[in-house]
Order: sequence, then C-alpha cells, then structure tokens
Amino acid sequence: MVLIIEGNKNLVEYSTRKYFNPSSLYQFGAKNFKDIIETKKLVCKQLGVDFKNNIIFTGSATEASNLAIMGSYRKSFKKMIFSIGEHPSVYNTALGLKTKNDGVEIEFIRLSSNGEIDYAHLEEILSEGQVDFISIMQVSNETGAIKCLYKISKLRRKYAPNAILHIDGVQAFGKIKTNLNDFDIDFYTISAHKLHGPKGLGVLYAKNPAKLVPQMLGGGQEFNIRSGTENLASIMAFKIALEKIDPTNQTYNRIIDYKRQFISYLKENVDSKIKLKFVDNQNSSPYIVSLAIVGIKGETLLYMCEENGVLISNGSACSSKKSGNRILQNMGYTKEEIEGSVRISFSNLTTQEEIINGAKIITNCINELYKKLN
Amino acid sequence: MVLIIEGNKNLVEYSTRKYFNPSSLYQFGAKNFKDIIETKKLVCKQLGVDFKNNIIFTGSATEASNLAIMGSYRKSFKKMIFSIGEHPSVYNTALGLKTKNDGVEIEFIRLSSNGEIDYAHLEEILSEGQVDFISIMQVSNETGAIKCLYKISKLRRKYAPNAILHIDGVQAFGKIKTNLNDFDIDFYTISAHKLHGPKGLGVLYAKNPAKLVPQMLGGGQEFNIRSGTENLASIMAFKIALEKIDPTNQTYNRIIDYKRQFISYLKENVDSKIKLKFVDNQNSSPYIVSLAIVGIKGETLLYMCEENGVLISNGSACSSKKSGNRILQNMGYTKEEIEGSVRISFSNLTTQEEIINGAKIITNCINELYKKLN
Repeated sequence: MVLIIEGNKNLVEYSTRKYFNPSSLYQFGAKNFKDIIETKKLVCKQLGVDFKNNIIFTGSATEASNLAIMGSYRKSFKKMIFSIGEHPSVYNTALGLKTKNDGVEIEFIRLSSNGEIDYAHLEEILSEGQVDFISIMQVSNETGAIKCLYKISKLRRKYAPNAILHIDGVQAFGKIKTNLNDFDIDFYTISAHKLHGPKGLGVLYAKNPAKLVPQMLGGGQEFNIRSGTENLASIMAFKIALEKIDPTNQTYNRIIDYKRQFISYLKENVDSKIKLKFVDNQNSSPYIVSLAIVGIKGETLLYMCEENGVLISNGSACSSKKSGNRILQNMGYTKEEIEGSVRISFSNLTTQEEIINGAKIITNCINELYKKLN
Repeated sequence: MVLIIEGNKNLVEYSTRKYFNPSSLYQFGAKNFKDIIETKKLVCKQLGVDFKNNIIFTGSATEASNLAIMGSYRKSFKKMIFSIGEHPSVYNTALGLKTKNDGVEIEFIRLSSNGEIDYAHLEEILSEGQVDFISIMQVSNETGAIKCLYKISKLRRKYAPNAILHIDGVQAFGKIKTNLNDFDIDFYTISAHKLHGPKGLGVLYAKNPAKLVPQMLGGGQEFNIRSGTENLASIMAFKIALEKIDPTNQTYNRIIDYKRQFISYLKENVDSKIKLKFVDNQNSSPYIVSLAIVGIKGETLLYMCEENGVLISNGSACSSKKSGNRILQNMGYTKEEIEGSVRISFSNLTTQEEIINGAKIITNCINELYKKLN
C-alpha cells in the first residue's frame, strides 16, 4: 500500500534532521528512543493492552510471525497447530518445523467452505491431547474471511489453557478493533504497510517477551529480543498511520457499504452467462473481495485491469508467482474456480469514486475477456 | 548516519507514487522488481563480482551477519572461528552457538595490541585441524583497525580451503574498494546506513546462496532465502548512496588527510599533562579515530561534547549501554584507558570545516573536564 501522505514528513525528518541512532548514549539519540516508545504506546492503545516492553519492531510481518513461532518453539513440545489457511510466513514456517521431524507434531486445522476455520476440527484436535502452540490468522489475506477469536479462545481455554496463542493480525489491525486481553492472546503480528505505513516494518506484540528465544543476536535492541539498529524513520512514519486510525466504527461501516456497492454492481452488470463466485461469508472483512470467475484466467484479468488503471491481484503478492492455491482448494473450490480467482482490496483511504470506477472497469474487463475466450 | 540528501527523493517517490509491491504480478510491481535488481547490480559492481542472485536484502546488517552464520552452520561442522573483536551481531551469534554446546567447537581469534587480529593465532588455530567457518570483520567499528584480507585469505587457502569465509564489511563498504574474488570471500555483510543510506536495510553478498538455510520463511522473496515484502523505498534510497560512491581514491585520501589533521590538532593542543592514547595502527581506517584519555570518563566527555554540538561515541551504539569493552580489553588496554575511551567517526560527507571545529571543541572539552576532575 501507498505510504500515508503525512507519513513522508516523518520519513524524511527522521532520515535527515533527526537521524540520530536511538541506541546512542547522547541526548539526541535518547530523544529518538523516546519517540519510538511513544509509537509503541499507540500500538498498545490500539490493542487494548498496557505498554510494558511488549512491542517488538521487526523488518517485516514475516519476521514477526517467524519470531513468534520459532521463538516459542521448544523441543519439549508435543504438538503445534496451524490453520491451513495461514499466510506463507506462518504456513511455510510450520512446514519447516514439520520437515525437521524432531518429535514435535505439526498439525493443520482445516478450513470450512466459507473460508473460516473448521471449528469442529479445531475442537477435535484440541481434545485429542496436549497442544502447546496455536497459530491462526484473524482475517485471511486471500478470502477476507474473519476467524472468530471468541470461539478460538473459548476452545483453547477449555482444552489447552497452557497453549501459546499466536494471532496473525496483519489484515485486521487498524481496521477491526481487537482487545487482545479479551482472548488471552500471547502474540499478535502487525504489518506497517498494510495500514499505509512504510514497507520493511513489522510489529510483534508479545505478552511475555522474556519467554521468546531471540532469532537474531547482536547489539541487544528491542530489550534483547531483536537486535539491529532501530528502523527509526520507518517507525516514525508508521506513527502517523497509527494516529490516523479511526477510533469509531465510521470508517469500517463506510467500507462495508463500499463492498456491498461493489459486489452489487458486478452481480448486476457482469454478463449473466458468466458464473461469479464470491466468498460467501457473513463474517468477512469489507476490505477484501475474493471473486472467482469461471471461464477466464485470473492472471489475464489482472493484466487487463492494470491496462485500464485498476490494480487487482490473484492470491497474495507473497505467493503470486507460485502456482495453485492451497487456501481456495481447502475451501472446496474447483480447479476452474481457482484459475479464475482474483482478489480486490480496499483500504481506509479508498473513496466512493474509486469504488464505482473500479467496479465499472473490472466488469467491462470480465465481459470483454469472457467474450474473447468463449 | 544521516540519509544522503538525494536519497530522500527516492524514499518518498517509492513510498508514494511508485509504492507497488515488487512481488506483485502487475507491471508496476514488476517494474519495481527490476529497479531493485539495478540496485543489486550496483552492489555487485562495488564488490567486483558478477550479478547473479547473489545479493540478499535484509532488515539490517545484524540480520545479514546472522544469516551468513546461522544459515551456514551445520551440526556436522567441527569448528567455527571468529575474531574476538567482532561486532556484537557476529560475536553474540558466535556466543549463542557456543552455548548450544552441540559438538561444534567455537573458538575466538585474539587481537594484537594495534587492534588487528593476531595472525599467528589464526594460523595456529587453522593448522590444528578442520575449521569449517571463519568470520572476521574487515574494519573494526570501535578501533578502525583494518584486518589484512590478503593474509587471512592466504592462511585459509593453505590450511582450510574448504572453510566458509564471512567478512563483515560494514565499516569498509563504499570506503575501501574490495574485490571479493581476490580473497575467495563467501559472504560479505553491508549496512546501508553506514554509507548514508537509510536505517533498517542490510545486505548480504552470498557467493553460493543455495547453500544457505533460510532463517525466515514465507513468501519466498530474495530467491527463497529471505522472505518478507521487499523494503522497496529504502532499497531505492540506498541506490542513490551507491551511485555517490567515489570510484577514485580521492575521497579516501581526503579523509586520511582529515584524520591526520584531527589527531595532530589534539596532540598539539590537549594539555600536555593529559595522557592520550590513539589506536596505533598504520593500517587503520581514516573514518574512525579511537582515543583513550587517561583520567576522564568517556561517557562524561561524550555528553559535554554534545552540549557543544559535537557527537562522539563510546564503544558502538550497539553496545553503548553495556559496561566494559571486550575489544579494547583484548588489545591490552588498562581499565583506566578503557573508561576514558571515545570514538570519533567521519564519513564521505565530512568537511574540512567540521574537522577543524570538531578538533577544537573536543580539545576544549578534554582540557576543561580534566581540570575539573584532577
């Protein structure tokens, strides 16, 4: 996502006039260290937790999730479980642990056809015996499906109160207000650039950071959990994005309305011969539209839309160059539906005009492409 | 270090107008991917190597060195050796491996009194038996001492031709032209912000990246070695710093002259009662002055200099908040000398005027502080 306009001021200011290393002893450095703390306090406020060395800045959300998983992992664990719908930063880390084959069982929770996790399957796994670690994403980056933290937390309290709970909140933070303590969340992953902050900055909330094994050793920054010179300018640009989060439901409700308008337009204006399939989920993020168009290739539509000024995606950028789609497959999509799948994303900065124009252009592209091919 | 002025243009440009995810399938993303490749080619040019997927961008030089070490480490290794003078990002990673105590022997190479490594000790260790990994920094961030890559490479060829050689080039890159192939270097660490690039960006050169075990799993960026959305804007700001590297010796020679002037001024104008000790090394980086002033505390001098507008350091910022100094101690400094040690750094942007003013201010502070205390 584009950096929020006001963020550029801090990006430049803290790269030039206020560039001082936050870990330096001199006062200019110490002042910058304090400014970083202020940013961390804003993250805590958004998560409904007190600030106390529980926010770790990383180089990406990928690093944050890797740190939560690999920093928690112990050889003494019996079982770690992950939803099969996780972002590659979690899923591939889980696969990496599975390949290690060192006695810790790695199991995946199935998805239901609407993109949520199969809660019955989660219960089944939890009831079978000791589970030490659970990682589930709050909102799917591919389908927009929102997982019910209440249900997850309830099952965990019942069957595995000692299990560590990691929630990948990348697609939810700043959009869906979440009080981490309501669900006893141990780790929560955030990406700055998914919130119109800068790329190259992730955040891990850790309830008990002391329990984490650092995955990077060095100068001892981030209270010894994550060494490396603090990414000062990016952190301060992110601060602006944090300050812009709407504390009311207004923005969220506006985007809900946009998504409704967008989907209605497509349903009414795409040629009725063409079979459209939306992720059918009441509990879905308004920021993501997941759409399968039977009879066309998502990739071709993507290029065609770009030529007409609209950027859409097939799968996540993180896995766009890979073939297949583990997530839609697990939701029971056919091969044809997967091939015809695209993802359209909105943000807090999306405007009514963009919604209308976007819906028109995408509709035209679909109709034209279908005509050519069929 | 401050971001090079022209770098801000790219920082903002690639955060706003050209923000597109380089791993996206659409053309705007692909164009950014190509721009990143162009930056990597500039790094290769500077290192005298061909470009072929051998440059990995990371979130810091700390991450780059951690990746070189932990990504190379195998349980089957017999011995890994490190200089005792390494930056914490290497030294603490080595200590971490030592603590693992899993059969791989971790040994440290001593320093000589002038801050170089003790080459005889290196030869002794190498001749004793199989060494699988060697990590030595090119220029010490604390003393400025330059290690002789020629000697290191010669000893490695003679005794351990199969050992992996990692050089931490953070303080050398862009200042001391180094052709990696001349010394059969396998891994080379670079920090963008030590070259007036942005903070939060490191680089690892890897001769054979396929031999690295990724330390972060996810979307498969950086040819599967380092997952996480590319830090586009920072990479493109770093490109400007790379373009500004002086291909001649002019800048380097200018800084040599500055360092001479600086040291002469202090020797002539600091009260003759005060014992000054400079790192006595013919083969020393002109960018770093390491100075011990017997009878005062480095930390106090640092604060006093800041009040007068000059920023100096005691130890590296990465370890400034820790007590003691492993490196000066290993070079045989007394407790008093260590306590009175400061580090003054220059860069390619330092001016003649700054050298003169800086020398005057630091001299005055030393004289005044000494008078107060003695």
